[in-house]
Amino acid sequence: MEFTAQQIADLINGQIVGEPEQPVSGFGKIQEAKPQELTFLGNDKYSHFLKETNSQVIIISKKFKKEVTTGKTFIIVEDAYQAITQLLQMYESLQPKKNGIMQPTSIAENAQIKEKGFYLGEFSVISSGVKIGENVKIYPQVYIGENVEIGDNTIIYPGVKIYENIKIGRNVIIQSNSVIGCEGFGYQPDENGVFKKVPQLGNVIIENDVEIGACSTIDRATMGSTLIKEGTKLDNQIQIAHNVEIGRHNVIAAQSGVAGSTKIGHHNMIGGQVGVTGHLKIGNKIQIQAQSGVNHDVKDGEKLYGSPAFSAMDFRKSYVHFKNFSKIVQRVNKLEKLIKKENHDG
Amino acid sequence: MEFTAQQIADLINGQIVGEPEQPVSGFGKIQEAKPQELTFLGNDKYSHFLKETNSQVIIISKKFKKEVTTGKTFIIVEDAYQAITQLLQMYESLQPKKNGIMQPTSIAENAQIKEKGFYLGEFSVISSGVKIGENVKIYPQVYIGENVEIGDNTIIYPGVKIYENIKIGRNVIIQSNSVIGCEGFGYQPDENGVFKKVPQLGNVIIENDVEIGACSTIDRATMGSTLIKEGTKLDNQIQIAHNVEIGRHNVIAAQSGVAGSTKIGHHNMIGGQVGVTGHLKIGNKIQIQAQSGVNHDVKDGEKLYGSPAFSAMDFRKSYVHFKNFSKIVQRVNKLEKLIKKENHDG
Amino acid sequence: MEFTAQQIADLINGQIVGEPEQPVSGFGKIQEAKPQELTFLGNDKYSHFLKETNSQVIIISKKFKKEVTTGKTFIIVEDAYQAITQLLQMYESLQPKKNGIMQPTSIAENAQIKEKGFYLGEFSVISSGVKIGENVKIYPQVYIGENVEIGDNTIIYPGVKIYENIKIGRNVIIQSNSVIGCEGFGYQPDENGVFKKVPQLGNVIIENDVEIGACSTIDRATMGSTLIKEGTKLDNQIQIAHNVEIGRHNVIAAQSGVAGSTKIGHHNMIGGQVGVTGHLKIGNKIQIQAQSGVNHDVKDGEKLYGSPAFSAMDFRKSYVHFKNFSKIVQRVNKLEKLIKKENHDG
Repeated sequence: MEFTAQQIADLINGQIVGEPEQPVSGFGKIQEAKPQELTFLGNDKYSHFLKETNSQVIIISKKFKKEVTTGKTFIIVEDAYQAITQLLQMYESLQPKKNGIMQPTSIAENAQIKEKGFYLGEFSVISSGVKIGENVKIYPQVYIGENVEIGDNTIIYPGVKIYENIKIGRNVIIQSNSVIGCEGFGYQPDENGVFKKVPQLGNVIIENDVEIGACSTIDRATMGSTLIKEGTKLDNQIQIAHNVEIGRHNVIAAQSGVAGSTKIGHHNMIGGQVGVTGHLKIGNKIQIQAQSGVNHDVKDGEKLYGSPAFSAMDFRKSYVHFKNFSKIVQRVNKLEKLIKKENHDG
Repeated sequence: MEFTAQQIADLINGQIVGEPEQPVSGFGKIQEAKPQELTFLGNDKYSHFLKETNSQVIIISKKFKKEVTTGKTFIIVEDAYQAITQLLQMYESLQPKKNGIMQPTSIAENAQIKEKGFYLGEFSVISSGVKIGENVKIYPQVYIGENVEIGDNTIIYPGVKIYENIKIGRNVIIQSNSVIGCEGFGYQPDENGVFKKVPQLGNVIIENDVEIGACSTIDRATMGSTLIKEGTKLDNQIQIAHNVEIGRHNVIAAQSGVAGSTKIGHHNMIGGQVGVTGHLKIGNKIQIQAQSGVNHDVKDGEKLYGSPAFSAMDFRKSYVHFKNFSKIVQRVNKLEKLIKKENHDG
Repeated sequence: MEFTAQQIADLINGQIVGEPEQPVSGFGKIQEAKPQELTFLGNDKYSHFLKETNSQVIIISKKFKKEVTTGKTFIIVEDAYQAITQLLQMYESLQPKKNGIMQPTSIAENAQIKEKGFYLGEFSVISSGVKIGENVKIYPQVYIGENVEIGDNTIIYPGVKIYENIKIGRNVIIQSNSVIGCEGFGYQPDENGVFKKVPQLGNVIIENDVEIGACSTIDRATMGSTLIKEGTKLDNQIQIAHNVEIGRHNVIAAQSGVAGSTKIGHHNMIGGQVGVTGHLKIGNKIQIQAQSGVNHDVKDGEKLYGSPAFSAMDFRKSYVHFKNFSKIVQRVNKLEKLIKKENHDG
């Protein structure tokens, strides 16, 4: 697939400086792009690559306008990162889509599947009572349990396992080998400290536009539903326990976990390897730094850090002292000596 | 499935206050139950929902007896949570069970399988030399390697992979996409810092009544066995390294890991995202707080917290000071000024 | 398979003390070996087991020569651990290897597969454009996406999922249910805080002699390649984000994660449950302690500890004070009282 610089500029509403007919095919990062690959500069951190890049056509944010040189072709836009994202999205939408039912697969007779745009990869299982919307893509070796519902345009990558009665919305993406609806970790100890299983009879509801990374696990509720609301994005190896509710448009980075029955609000940003304990209420627009451990309710807009977590600003201050702890103790030692001396002297 | 309040009361040895013929179908949490759903109250934290709940039939612990009102039906029991657990267990035991060998599957000719109650889901593989007890349920897309033994009533959910020579007891449950018997992380560096693999020729033994969550990994031993003893419950995304031994009736929460050759005793409670380093001896009835890192042997009954972990009580005290570290340093600053002034003055 | 002590000694260039014709079959750890099992002693920590072991033939490092007793057979070598590793490797290389294409499987017509030594397990998928070298072993229920290339002697265990366009070198081993090439975690928020996906169009390159544990996830690059270089070993449940580069001969222990675009050098040792944030440059021959969180560039040879991480030696000193924090605060309290008293007295 080949384009000219001008064609690209027209797609993203950019202004050409240089050769409009310069051809491009493919994309590359500024530091590693080949001559024919289109690249971009949106971040000051990478501006020093502008002189060295092999790319002949470079999309730049307006703020780098003064860096324009001769010998290369530039496409000037408001925000280069947004422009390249837009191009990547267009490019991706032009890729051929998988279609049809491969063989062998196992589809229950009473499953209700909209044929339009449906793809079912080899060795996948659709159990009885399943309902599937339009343009759903289910890759190979996926398991869809009884009575699962899947909305339009949802993509389920190879090896995903979805237990019975789970509800999945539209435009959802689930990466490989994630598990939705496994049994939560519920046991009651008897008088001998032997644990008896508490049956997990609820389900999981995943709303529209949610995305879930690879090897993540979302437990079904004991009763009722574990709930992931609209637009929330979960990275790889995320663990969501039974009866958790996660609100709209959260971003949770890899290897984080949320314990049972905790409710999280909207528009939160949670770093990687974070743990949130159970039965908490977490508000909206909160930022939690990576590796933090949250063990108390959190109000809207807070920024948290530490294990256990508290105000990120205070954590950073305390941690500076922690790094200097030996010096601080030496100062206390010295004070004690001085006081002792004074008392002896006095 | 519909019952009357009286029928429920009879099953759990409860006392009715209200309408014995009130019908119920299904279960719900007190804050979200529908009118026909049976609910329960066992925890003070949720008692304020008693007035608002839509449920018409509520199991309550004796201690909430005085909260009984007119207009609803109450079933009074010793412990409402235990009663509801008992009902959920009865309900679950009445669900139809999967049975029979689906097609296509791959079963080695010399596999010894007890037919009674056997279920084998589509696209599962039973390798040669495998022995399987009665009432074993193996869901779709499971891999059972050579010479694996599986005891009666064990359930293996979709996508689980079990390498060769693993021994699994009775009443074991393994959730989706967990891996049992993968090769442990054993390498020897040569003089150039190039790592040579140490072959991992041992196995894993999983005793009766063990449960393992989704996407957990248990490495086979280098020699001998990695061992998970009777009744221990592992949550999702747990990592157990080669030659680890975990005793009876432990509970280990999600995303925790135990490094190689560590031996853990009985009846321990280990929080989420905990790490235990290798070659340690951990006793019995120990509690380890979430996100802790244990790097030394632990005696019976200890409670640990922190990374690295020490006495939980001491950790909490130290952490209060850590949060106030700036103030403490200000106090030291002030002391220094005072002393300096005194010395000048003196 | 049975050998004599002398045959074993000849294989590892060892010197017999005792009965050269003593038979052995199998291997065992010194504390648990059965009489006929060959065992070894290389580590002082285990020397007390020498008297109790049931094994009749024991490989010992030269340094334990004086521990030799009558009644057992000893094979004296320079380094017992290296000798036993060598034997385990020989033993493993003699095991029968899997071969041939099982049925059913799905192989695209245009896939280019070298037949020599090829094994393809049941229910695996080889997509179109795939190229596979000699002696490649692909276990059951594996998914190989479009245009993937796999070098000679590579082993891919059950349930691994490899997305399209991934390049995998020679002698690579990937344990069960790992995912290579899943879409990275890239989103751009719009003005309403709604996240739009940034398409992930790059790939993953895994060089020769790399090993990857079970349930690990390696994201494809946004553009260009996520790169794991020669000889690096990743344990189970590792997360590698998009556009990360990991150099040669690193060892990264279980449940660690590396965030997007970070570049890691060569010969580093990274403990378990470590997190490394994005866009960093990590040098060579670095040691990072378990559960550390690295959030800044790291120079060659550093040893790091803590979350966030700094010099391991300094962290350990600070942490000793942290454990004694209550006593330190008591000392400050006392100083304040003394100063106050003095000021009153003075």
